[in-house]
Amino acid sequence: MRLSLIASLVAALSMPALAAGSALADAALRDQAKGLFEPLPQTPPALPGETATPEKLALGKMLFFEPRLSDTRDMSCAACHNLSMGGVDGGALSGGHNAQLAGREVQTVLNAVFNKSQYWDGRNTDLKDQVVNSVMANPKAMLKTRGGPMAINPVEHAAAKQRTIEQLKTIPGYVDAFSKAFPDQPDPLNYENIGRAIALFEATLITPDAPFDRWLKGDDAALTDDQKAGARLFMEKGCAGCHNGVNIGGASFAKFGVVAPPPADYLPADDWGRFAVTKNIADKYAFKVPSLRNVELTAPYFHTGATFDLKHAVTVMGETQLGQKLTDDEATKIVAFLKSLTGKQPEVVLPILPPRTR
Amino acid sequence: MRLSLIASLVAALSMPALAAGSALADAALRDQAKGLFEPLPQTPPALPGETATPEKLALGKMLFFEPRLSDTRDMSCAACHNLSMGGVDGGALSGGHNAQLAGREVQTVLNAVFNKSQYWDGRNTDLKDQVVNSVMANPKAMLKTRGGPMAINPVEHAAAKQRTIEQLKTIPGYVDAFSKAFPDQPDPLNYENIGRAIALFEATLITPDAPFDRWLKGDDAALTDDQKAGARLFMEKGCAGCHNGVNIGGASFAKFGVVAPPPADYLPADDWGRFAVTKNIADKYAFKVPSLRNVELTAPYFHTGATFDLKHAVTVMGETQLGQKLTDDEATKIVAFLKSLTGKQPEVVLPILPPRTR
Repeated sequence: MRLSLIASLVAALSMPALAAGSALADAALRDQAKGLFEPLPQTPPALPGETATPEKLALGKMLFFEPRLSDTRDMSCAACHNLSMGGVDGGALSGGHNAQLAGREVQTVLNAVFNKSQYWDGRNTDLKDQVVNSVMANPKAMLKTRGGPMAINPVEHAAAKQRTIEQLKTIPGYVDAFSKAFPDQPDPLNYENIGRAIALFEATLITPDAPFDRWLKGDDAALTDDQKAGARLFMEKGCAGCHNGVNIGGASFAKFGVVAPPPADYLPADDWGRFAVTKNIADKYAFKVPSLRNVELTAPYFHTGATFDLKHAVTVMGETQLGQKLTDDEATKIVAFLKSLTGKQPEVVLPILPPRTR
Repeated sequence: MRLSLIASLVAALSMPALAAGSALADAALRDQAKGLFEPLPQTPPALPGETATPEKLALGKMLFFEPRLSDTRDMSCAACHNLSMGGVDGGALSGGHNAQLAGREVQTVLNAVFNKSQYWDGRNTDLKDQVVNSVMANPKAMLKTRGGPMAINPVEHAAAKQRTIEQLKTIPGYVDAFSKAFPDQPDPLNYENIGRAIALFEATLITPDAPFDRWLKGDDAALTDDQKAGARLFMEKGCAGCHNGVNIGGASFAKFGVVAPPPADYLPADDWGRFAVTKNIADKYAFKVPSLRNVELTAPYFHTGATFDLKHAVTVMGETQLGQKLTDDEATKIVAFLKSLTGKQPEVVLPILPPRTR
């Protein structure tokens, strides 16, 4: 009896959470959110200067899954950008977790088309350039080099390009697929077109209809009360200062450790991030603010893949970027909100790749 | 004028080829073929003692694509059994082509359910046992060991099993998926069920409707004249003595080099093949007769992956197994026939794998 009375009192004291669930509170929160975020479009955006024909998309998908694009014939785009796992590799091939492959953590290909720049240091603004940069290099060598393909010896790089094109030309299925995708070109099997086709395919890899998107569009029931409380905290604590827009990030750069330094293994001293691109000392240790869409699926977190624990990552961000010591309850609610950013994953039918023939 | 007369004469002299294309000739050839081969069924066969529920198949597909089944978290079944490439790895991860990974060539998972045994040495008769054997071992270690998981230290093996089960148990999506797939079991997340679910999924990976199957069923137009000539040669030269039945192979073992020894790199002296299983000296250098279905897609060939050239592989087989010195024309026609064994590849929608959560 006594216990149930206490339980009732506790329930009554939780009124702010109930109030947060009311239609009025939703409308106010939504107004605030609409000033910072926008729902993901239902259909893929067009790429500048490109027409996405079925033939180009089919070719792009084949190439995305093609291990023969790598010198070792065992690494496709899909190996690191696993479309079964949120477009990342779960930390297995990248990051600091594998002694062989000390690079930066893979960033998701999902919704990458909505990012203002590509790579952790934003070295490319364009998806196609990112594709070309990543494919051109031997991905295994790339992963061994901190920061990726930029660091690759340009002579090696050109030779690897040449070998890949020569190999694809021995596969009649590819000769045919490039001709169909680029029918107006006399010699379409080249690196430029590999980049164009893969980028067009990647632009289809979007994840609309996340609960947060449905809520933004007016469906009060799409978020739980905890998720709404988390959305409010996300805005009020300042997270949305960087993680905003259609991709809830992906549009700017920020120094990791604005207010307080992160642990040493979260920010290795020898990776200067954005500085490598701009040579501006103000960009030392700045990295792209990643999109938080599907963040539930894209562990491990940070450019170093330093943690698999999303709540811990949120807490670290609060301390290093905002000078906020989040309570456990606050971090839990923000994580609940972040999980509302998981959208409908693209349904991808595996392509059938052409055999090589003599 | 003169040239066109010669062309007409040449055409007239090609009558045997034309005759081979007649309905009468087709009927006779088909009768002969029906005594040796049978068309692949349109639907997956049942596995003994198993019921393929949608929940089991969904779980099996997830596990087939799950890199977290490996200790290094980067190798799934699909990494070696690439369903975009005929269910094999194109020689990139296995065989003798990669100095790091000296094992045997990957065998295709497509139609494996129709093989009477699994692995090149036939150590398992059952698909489920093959799955369990392959998954249990750390696949990377397995690939480094000639002959596969049998050679793995059993203590290591058991520890790896334990780690995998413990890891899967931390992923709520898997706890849920195993419960749904095996609703009558109190603790369904175990290795036995991993094997059952993956085997059930693998049994769906069949490739019906190959041109040869359509021809066997009565469609004269399904094969070209060269393919029909190749089918006749395949039977008359003796190839079909071993490569027969529904899988055109996969049902027996044969010493590699019955009549004449193959080149040393095709048959390394230290891999005794079937002998490792039976300890019968008659099985020294015997290997499973592989299925030739989809052989066009499954280069490189032989247990060593010694060649990518199908015509060369046919020629070598003729010499070593049959004592037949095939002419270039005969080998070309047999290859044309072999390409008629490429069936409709399974349409596989990538599964979405559950994230780990704390």
